[in-house]
Amino acid sequence: MSLLVVGSVAFDAVETPFGKREKMLGGSGSHFSISASFFTDVRIVGVVGGDFGDEEAKVFENHNVDTTDLERIPDGKTFRWYGRYDYDLNTAHTLDTQLNVFADFQPKLSAESLKSRLVFLGNIQPDLQRGVREQIPNAELVALDTMNLWIDIARDSLIETIKGVDVVIVNDAEARQLTEEPNLMKAARKILALGPKALVVKRGEYGAALFTGGNYFAIPAYPLETVFDPTGAGDTFAGGFMGYLASQDNLDEAAMRRAMIFGSVMASFNVEEFGTERVQRLTHAEINERFSAFKQMTFFEEILFERAARA
Amino acid sequence: MSLLVVGSVAFDAVETPFGKREKMLGGSGSHFSISASFFTDVRIVGVVGGDFGDEEAKVFENHNVDTTDLERIPDGKTFRWYGRYDYDLNTAHTLDTQLNVFADFQPKLSAESLKSRLVFLGNIQPDLQRGVREQIPNAELVALDTMNLWIDIARDSLIETIKGVDVVIVNDAEARQLTEEPNLMKAARKILALGPKALVVKRGEYGAALFTGGNYFAIPAYPLETVFDPTGAGDTFAGGFMGYLASQDNLDEAAMRRAMIFGSVMASFNVEEFGTERVQRLTHAEINERFSAFKQMTFFEEILFERAARA
Repeated sequence: MSLLVVGSVAFDAVETPFGKREKMLGGSGSHFSISASFFTDVRIVGVVGGDFGDEEAKVFENHNVDTTDLERIPDGKTFRWYGRYDYDLNTAHTLDTQLNVFADFQPKLSAESLKSRLVFLGNIQPDLQRGVREQIPNAELVALDTMNLWIDIARDSLIETIKGVDVVIVNDAEARQLTEEPNLMKAARKILALGPKALVVKRGEYGAALFTGGNYFAIPAYPLETVFDPTGAGDTFAGGFMGYLASQDNLDEAAMRRAMIFGSVMASFNVEEFGTERVQRLTHAEINERFSAFKQMTFFEEILFERAARA
Repeated sequence: MSLLVVGSVAFDAVETPFGKREKMLGGSGSHFSISASFFTDVRIVGVVGGDFGDEEAKVFENHNVDTTDLERIPDGKTFRWYGRYDYDLNTAHTLDTQLNVFADFQPKLSAESLKSRLVFLGNIQPDLQRGVREQIPNAELVALDTMNLWIDIARDSLIETIKGVDVVIVNDAEARQLTEEPNLMKAARKILALGPKALVVKRGEYGAALFTGGNYFAIPAYPLETVFDPTGAGDTFAGGFMGYLASQDNLDEAAMRRAMIFGSVMASFNVEEFGTERVQRLTHAEINERFSAFKQMTFFEEILFERAARA
């Protein structure tokens, strides 16, 4: 039940109306792998600089994330992102991005990684995503994330890459932009027509939707009175989704639906505190409790309407 | 199982990217009562002018909507609304509003109306809503809708009115504006603290949510590839919600949850064509089929996660 993730490992500096952090572990690979680690064994492929220290390595170690393929470049610096959120926590304002060692990232996969059963291609340049995917032709399920930048500057490569994966995990704006289709149902149909068997659309505070062939599944988000820091929520969702699938023998639609819930559960914890802080100290009991809460908040009895005869 | 609605009856002129209508039956009372008529007996309280003809009266008659309390002012003109939607069908652009006889509307309730079991106070001036509510103190359940205009110019009266009803049915922007609270969960708590036992929040393409004391229920919208004309979707939702409740003996939370689905079902049909055209020719079989589709698209098995022991 091995799960591989290729993505960024970064130091994030984040300011929100509720406080700030100068330097904390971030990046798609970090959020994904820590989240997925609650469900399965995870390997991370990425690159960090000489400033990546014991404290950060310890976080991965604590979650049994295998960092064999996390390349270390001692004379380089780790990717850094500086962001700010105002009261509208849906919108991240990027203050500065320093790609550093991530600028020349070339994923290198060990023999063990090449045997992964599930693969998540985090949001990196689509050529690199495709390169990884082609090295693991026998993976049972490969998913990818992307972002508006790649839709803008590498659309053709991205579409080629999408043709080769099983699941696309994006937010609704990305689905619309990718297909140039304002209606989400039509956008989904166009993405599935490229080849993937499933599309997951993340809708932030409105929840998430799963499109599979003829079927549609949609869930609300877990209701939170306080959203503290949304950074990494999407990758944390993907980590819960893929991690849960990796724990299952049968990757059918019923499993994917449960995976949508576990993804939403993990994302809901992620936004409660800065960076990965809340997720790091999660317990399985807390995860399962919130999973059950999703059942509670979406359940209704299927009793059809029968009109009483008129007098 | 009588249901009373107080609201506007209007002639709408609507332009969308897909076509237009010069003059069709509209208004909150019309959309609500036609929708509710599929579930229960409905009485409408409103006012129309001499231009309200047999064709429009026939629509109410066809749906057994009792128009005894629909006042006719022969030398006046019916409320008219002219609106346009661009490709973003979430936003209505009002081109012109002619209140006409609706400007001096004073709801007059017949003896039969005063005995109504359920009452829906459609979006009219809050003083008028409160006046109606106070005339029917024994109603089992009273709900109200409102709009940004009344929050702006009649906030104190609106809050007084909300204190006297059982259910508030608004959209998410209205809930936020009313409470000056960007977080919807906190906004809901503030509204329920005024007195109502339930708050229904309509979220357009994202579905709807029901807040009742400590419980939360949320559903997605029915997925549509084409939204033709969203005019009246909110009132059609309210009509399905209240109409279904009126058909039930027990107005508990389980019934309200099913009512949320029937409301969403009715709204989803409403937007498929202009005005009330699609809803007018609905069948109970179609309504129940879409109710079942909601179950399909929200169902997942409640199987908690158990991590396999590590080797």
